[in-house]
Amino acid sequence: MENKHTIVIDTLGSDKGPEAIIEGAKMVLDEFENINVTLVGDEELIKSKNLPSERIKIIHAPETVTNYDSPVEAFYKKANVSVFKAVEECAKDDSAIGIISAGNTGALLVGTLRYLLNEKRTRPALAAILPNMQHGFTCLVDTGASIDCGPSQLVEFAHLGTDFMRKLYKIESPRVGLLSNGSEPTKGNHLVKETYPLLAKEEGINFIGNIEGTQALSGKCDVLVAEGFAGNQVLKNSEGMAINLITEIIKFGKKTGNEEITKQIAGYIMKTYDFESLGAGIMLGARKLVMKCRGSSGPVAIKNTAKILANIIANKTFYE
Amino acid sequence: MENKHTIVIDTLGSDKGPEAIIEGAKMVLDEFENINVTLVGDEELIKSKNLPSERIKIIHAPETVTNYDSPVEAFYKKANVSVFKAVEECAKDDSAIGIISAGNTGALLVGTLRYLLNEKRTRPALAAILPNMQHGFTCLVDTGASIDCGPSQLVEFAHLGTDFMRKLYKIESPRVGLLSNGSEPTKGNHLVKETYPLLAKEEGINFIGNIEGTQALSGKCDVLVAEGFAGNQVLKNSEGMAINLITEIIKFGKKTGNEEITKQIAGYIMKTYDFESLGAGIMLGARKLVMKCRGSSGPVAIKNTAKILANIIANKTFYE
Repeated sequence: MENKHTIVIDTLGSDKGPEAIIEGAKMVLDEFENINVTLVGDEELIKSKNLPSERIKIIHAPETVTNYDSPVEAFYKKANVSVFKAVEECAKDDSAIGIISAGNTGALLVGTLRYLLNEKRTRPALAAILPNMQHGFTCLVDTGASIDCGPSQLVEFAHLGTDFMRKLYKIESPRVGLLSNGSEPTKGNHLVKETYPLLAKEEGINFIGNIEGTQALSGKCDVLVAEGFAGNQVLKNSEGMAINLITEIIKFGKKTGNEEITKQIAGYIMKTYDFESLGAGIMLGARKLVMKCRGSSGPVAIKNTAKILANIIANKTFYE
Repeated sequence: MENKHTIVIDTLGSDKGPEAIIEGAKMVLDEFENINVTLVGDEELIKSKNLPSERIKIIHAPETVTNYDSPVEAFYKKANVSVFKAVEECAKDDSAIGIISAGNTGALLVGTLRYLLNEKRTRPALAAILPNMQHGFTCLVDTGASIDCGPSQLVEFAHLGTDFMRKLYKIESPRVGLLSNGSEPTKGNHLVKETYPLLAKEEGINFIGNIEGTQALSGKCDVLVAEGFAGNQVLKNSEGMAINLITEIIKFGKKTGNEEITKQIAGYIMKTYDFESLGAGIMLGARKLVMKCRGSSGPVAIKNTAKILANIIANKTFYE
């Protein structure tokens, strides 16, 4: 008999409302026979959706951490915050392989720090696994969980990304690049200039030097290390440009009467650069799989993120 | 009789070598009858190219500032650096409307600080005028001249960008956005969080709040303020993504036998997002027009940058 796994889903925090997330949980149950879900949020609302009761567990925790709250304060002051309860449940339940949340990133980080640190007790980092131009994937770390960083944190990011790409993509010695404003070793802000020599001499890190923005998704490196603020720019700007250009292509098709082919091209690009459903972040360094979906996530994004968890558990790569 | 203008061109510092820049100068002379050029660099090499002697002046200054030099040190230690001599000449020559350089950005900033400060004596900032999704242009400032900044510098960037967009694009009250990792006022790194309230209360600034990476070129703001390191990511990442997607489109055309139409689409996109020739930076806050071409610039980039200068002098917008 195949092992049953549980995925904990935080139903609160998405811009689309808890209904969208619960709908996503339904899709997860439909698609993955060996996965049960634990739903955390407003018990009454969840119950009203009539999911198969033998495959779900409900935890009542109706409070949220908004973008206007301090996550740390919320952790100590609010009693029933869904994201914190969800991470706690994930830590306690042996059958739980991970948690999915579309809520506040900082709150997810605080919950992970509190309940799901691994044996090394490194501060976790939020990574995105992005398609690159060499038909592989680049692990961008951090994408916004740690906005202001010091050099030693960036070295930790390098280790977290290296471990992840080695384990998941079977790359023996992942190439690590440092995001900078030029490829020369002399380029960078204070942080990058301090971090460069540390990475160059760090054992277990295959450091290939600075990577500038034009090359971020070129495939030159397997792990791209950045402070959360800058990494967030790379992630979101890439997404914004993909959306802008797809819009332009569609417009061009309409204007010139080539709608059929431009739709095909847009579809082809979106298959690779569909940040909406592919763009789930993973909290590296946690003891279980902690997945951050973007705030705009709908049902499909939740289902696709569950698929990533299923892939990882089955020893496959991220997007199989 | 029409007034003759002079453009000073630093021939050293491009990755493509001084020949490419001199070739660009030739194109400028061919295209703009009322513009003369002053060429700064290796006198013998420049002479060997036989440009029309009545329309050029040559200044011998064969030294360069490399990406491995400190620009400030170079300014005091090296006697004949082309970029410094070029800025100095631009300041002294009354007929000179501006300077074009493809060399080291820091050196161009140091030269501008030394010779071309305006009456307000603000530290200049390097801006890029980028196409946005509302068929207008967004002034991104700073794009890499001031890598590490403080809050008051970002407020200055807002003023510089506002003045520029008002003057050039006749926008009465340009909307100013602050690049952040989320649109909420609480989002940002330390710098952004400190800058936000300053911009909100700053007189003469129409501050519309934080702009996240996905929206950088959406057209939501006319001026996008960022620390040089982060602004550089937006500029270069946008460029990198445009190149990646154009490459994907061409590949798709080859694979599916639709080369004709995909070439048209690629051409259409490149007309808008051709960072190679459109992407010249302008040093805001200088007393004359200081243009930074990218290191990879060839002849066409130099000619297009001269066209921008000609446009501005003729009271037109950047890319007419």
